[in-house]
Amino acid sequence: MFEGVFPPIPTPFAAGEVAHDKLSENIARWNQTGLAGYVVLGSNGENVYLSEAEKRAVIVTAREAVPSNKLLIVGTGCESTKLTMESTRTAAEWGADGVLIVTPSYYKGQMTPQALYRHYISVADASPIPILVYNVPKFTGLNIAPTLVARLAEHPKIAGIKDSAGDIGQLIEIARLVPPDFEVLVGNAPAYYSALGVGAIGAVLALANVAPRECVAIKELFDQGKLDEARALHSRLMPVGRAVTSQFGIGGLKAALDLLGYYGGQPRSPLFYPHPEEVEEIRGILRQAELLT
Amino acid sequence: MFEGVFPPIPTPFAAGEVAHDKLSENIARWNQTGLAGYVVLGSNGENVYLSEAEKRAVIVTAREAVPSNKLLIVGTGCESTKLTMESTRTAAEWGADGVLIVTPSYYKGQMTPQALYRHYISVADASPIPILVYNVPKFTGLNIAPTLVARLAEHPKIAGIKDSAGDIGQLIEIARLVPPDFEVLVGNAPAYYSALGVGAIGAVLALANVAPRECVAIKELFDQGKLDEARALHSRLMPVGRAVTSQFGIGGLKAALDLLGYYGGQPRSPLFYPHPEEVEEIRGILRQAELLT
Amino acid sequence: MFEGVFPPIPTPFAAGEVAHDKLSENIARWNQTGLAGYVVLGSNGENVYLSEAEKRAVIVTAREAVPSNKLLIVGTGCESTKLTMESTRTAAEWGADGVLIVTPSYYKGQMTPQALYRHYISVADASPIPILVYNVPKFTGLNIAPTLVARLAEHPKIAGIKDSAGDIGQLIEIARLVPPDFEVLVGNAPAYYSALGVGAIGAVLALANVAPRECVAIKELFDQGKLDEARALHSRLMPVGRAVTSQFGIGGLKAALDLLGYYGGQPRSPLFYPHPEEVEEIRGILRQAELLT
Amino acid sequence: MFEGVFPPIPTPFAAGEVAHDKLSENIARWNQTGLAGYVVLGSNGENVYLSEAEKRAVIVTAREAVPSNKLLIVGTGCESTKLTMESTRTAAEWGADGVLIVTPSYYKGQMTPQALYRHYISVADASPIPILVYNVPKFTGLNIAPTLVARLAEHPKIAGIKDSAGDIGQLIEIARLVPPDFEVLVGNAPAYYSALGVGAIGAVLALANVAPRECVAIKELFDQGKLDEARALHSRLMPVGRAVTSQFGIGGLKAALDLLGYYGGQPRSPLFYPHPEEVEEIRGILRQAELLT
Repeated sequence: MFEGVFPPIPTPFAAGEVAHDKLSENIARWNQTGLAGYVVLGSNGENVYLSEAEKRAVIVTAREAVPSNKLLIVGTGCESTKLTMESTRTAAEWGADGVLIVTPSYYKGQMTPQALYRHYISVADASPIPILVYNVPKFTGLNIAPTLVARLAEHPKIAGIKDSAGDIGQLIEIARLVPPDFEVLVGNAPAYYSALGVGAIGAVLALANVAPRECVAIKELFDQGKLDEARALHSRLMPVGRAVTSQFGIGGLKAALDLLGYYGGQPRSPLFYPHPEEVEEIRGILRQAELLT
Repeated sequence: MFEGVFPPIPTPFAAGEVAHDKLSENIARWNQTGLAGYVVLGSNGENVYLSEAEKRAVIVTAREAVPSNKLLIVGTGCESTKLTMESTRTAAEWGADGVLIVTPSYYKGQMTPQALYRHYISVADASPIPILVYNVPKFTGLNIAPTLVARLAEHPKIAGIKDSAGDIGQLIEIARLVPPDFEVLVGNAPAYYSALGVGAIGAVLALANVAPRECVAIKELFDQGKLDEARALHSRLMPVGRAVTSQFGIGGLKAALDLLGYYGGQPRSPLFYPHPEEVEEIRGILRQAELLT
Repeated sequence: MFEGVFPPIPTPFAAGEVAHDKLSENIARWNQTGLAGYVVLGSNGENVYLSEAEKRAVIVTAREAVPSNKLLIVGTGCESTKLTMESTRTAAEWGADGVLIVTPSYYKGQMTPQALYRHYISVADASPIPILVYNVPKFTGLNIAPTLVARLAEHPKIAGIKDSAGDIGQLIEIARLVPPDFEVLVGNAPAYYSALGVGAIGAVLALANVAPRECVAIKELFDQGKLDEARALHSRLMPVGRAVTSQFGIGGLKAALDLLGYYGGQPRSPLFYPHPEEVEEIRGILRQAELLT
Repeated sequence: MFEGVFPPIPTPFAAGEVAHDKLSENIARWNQTGLAGYVVLGSNGENVYLSEAEKRAVIVTAREAVPSNKLLIVGTGCESTKLTMESTRTAAEWGADGVLIVTPSYYKGQMTPQALYRHYISVADASPIPILVYNVPKFTGLNIAPTLVARLAEHPKIAGIKDSAGDIGQLIEIARLVPPDFEVLVGNAPAYYSALGVGAIGAVLALANVAPRECVAIKELFDQGKLDEARALHSRLMPVGRAVTSQFGIGGLKAALDLLGYYGGQPRSPLFYPHPEEVEEIRGILRQAELLT
């Protein structure tokens, strides 16, 4: 169901408010590429910077802009089970095809495997639509064990996982432990090519915002057995993947979009847009990867 | 202004909803002790588990229950500057005497000193009431440098810091760098006695929920120069301090309150109440510290 | 030159002293498999537990036991450049074909890229034989950046890297930045199969001590384009790889060897042999992986 | 027995070799201050950079230079129990009054409380002289729990602990759990003043190499009840303490010694001496603290 490439799209702002027209325009443009769908309200969507009302409005706009042959996945994970259940139901009502639920992590010391298990099962029981578990240690400071993923995979509403840990051994271990129909998506650009080789059927990549066609092509080449071509294309994109994540953050992702003709714009404070000289560095990285002439 | 002992009070729930009557009753009981005031909607208040509406309602109830000779401090820190400004203004409107603003931390890699500086200055410019910076690395994974604290201390609305890092050297360094009227509160029970010795004028301690009189007495003994007595009392409380924080978490704090005649109750999921045998262990720790007979 | 599979062999002890006869016998038995050679005095060889004289004696014994068509690689990395140069020269004199030099890490805060660069270049200048840089963050708490690896790769004596970080993206980045003749060996069993797919030409794996034929077969299958078979075999061995590293440590590796008919024996204190019930667990893991009947 | 201030002295080198004359001269000069003794072959002594023979020679030279009314403590901790026992016996033979034994840490995942317990008990059983446990998480990546310290304190040869964790709560917890004659020394300059207030009877401080009289004076003032003066002096030295540890490392410590008329000299590679502009910064820090005119 979740096979393919999904960008976790940024939320555009103009004068500090959500720019719904820009969101629609960006999606319209991405619709021309081979993306399988979109993730809204994920980490790259500045989810934690939006009010409850703003989140609902973003879902509405996205749903209108995303055609029915592409999937709309909404990030609905909150710290508490109660709020996560409510936001998941809301997303389903407004037309989401699936939800992405990050591991709660604020009270790290208390987030035992048993606590996480209960959280996900309660949310899954309450959800009208399929759930992807979302593991992103660099943001949460917490990793979900493959054995726990395997237990969660038994629930009919828990359809898969987006694993952004970047640990290929963990992807292999998850694949070894879960049923064949449990879907593994990789959420880490450097591990993308290798993840396809160990059973991942899709990817949620910040990189796919700025290189949608190329990210789709990597999977197509891989599926056709053209491994060397897939690997070479992936390797070429690595510096871009780093620029729009760890190196320049969400501000860097938005700057790259601006350079590529999408609407990026300012992130909300305390995130920040790169300095002009950093924007030039990003331009150079995009050119080097042949995404910009 | 913020001299004295403040418990970061838990938010009581009954049947999963905020139990406003229990909140009022708990505060009424704490009012009989020598506490200088209260922190609501802090980490121990399960802030991140509450909806926007629930947070407003908690402030209203607390304001009614807290007499005018005690301070009401509200945790209003959000990840974005915009939401933090809004929640700070709301708290002021509903009667808060001060706000506690945790360092934003979700996008750790981007939370440079300059980003944090802009965040706090923007919030301070917009705040009608005094601000305490809140540094809690165990939850945020991020520590605020004393040199940045010193720069923030220049703003007239930034009145002090609650530092929960538990690093006594950092408290000394902050005290060395800030103006004399900048108030340092320690947020870590094991460092409480020593913090008083290096310039802290108050404390925000989970321990103060269950041992309010004793926490107040430590400061009184210290202020009277009875250092050995202060130190002995502090040492006696250490296992309790650990039980209601790192050892059993917020569930353990609530269980201890239940044992002591306050209303604790269940925390919201995925937090959890201790098992019966753990509750007995907590009972033993409270007895050992002479908080329970 | 370093193509193929190399086990980092443990140092056998009897009554607390190095058991040279057992070392020879183990190597004689491994010589019957398709291993490309051996690493002695690596982390798995309890290098840091041996005196200078014991290390020299281990090299002598190993050299006699390793036939000329297999490579003998010696771990000679010390914290100081001076001692590393001396132990590297000694290893060369006693017949080592190459040396493995771990990043110095005790004074972490001072181990800047420039300090590491000078260290490796000085050692390489003094070394009569090829050097492999050894990156093992789980032991050293320090990761070497691909850009630094690329600078080191320019030295004619620095032939390659053993990267045990288990970060597939880092292996791709190293491969992208170094000259084609720089050899990348993976030192992390979970990443082994995927590493072959992104340019690694060999592996140094604790797992290869207990599953030498299988580890060799994975590479052979991969080289023949039988990717599914290679991947399935790798996946089957994963629990074994974990048992002899993170799960039961060097004591677990030695217990597994004992179960398989090699000589394992007690590690030196403070390392320890698994309890009998853990040995049974290891036996079960070996059987599950079809290494034991 | 170990009451007072001890500098962990650096090992001086000239032309890359141990400069025994400089070592003697430095000690002769420190003998004029009120130091209680010296630690040689500690972390600041570049212990891990010295050969076995060099370590023995350093002990001999130090023993000759240290008068009988001052203590000579030798760092003899190695990764293995066997080598630690041997080096401890050697140190005793050459005249050490006590030894400092760092927690083994290379195989972190296996260094369970039980493994550490056996290590220390074996070494203590074999040691003719008193032992100080040495806890230094910033170098070892491992912290020893107060409950384990309490168990070790039962051994007649384990006389105390040097705790460099800088966690004042941990010092209080250790003091609460150990017998009254177990000696606690603090190994972290920022926590020095506060440690005296919670039961520490001494300190091992890199800072004491460059400010021996001042470090001694802090304890004297404290013992006389002149807390404000002790605290003010401690606060004044804080930037110096940071400069000779985390900020500029052992190279910085050696540069500060050179500026103060001792012999500092080059550390061994890969450690490095500060750049000239950094030396000027260190000079400014020493002047600001009134250690240099």
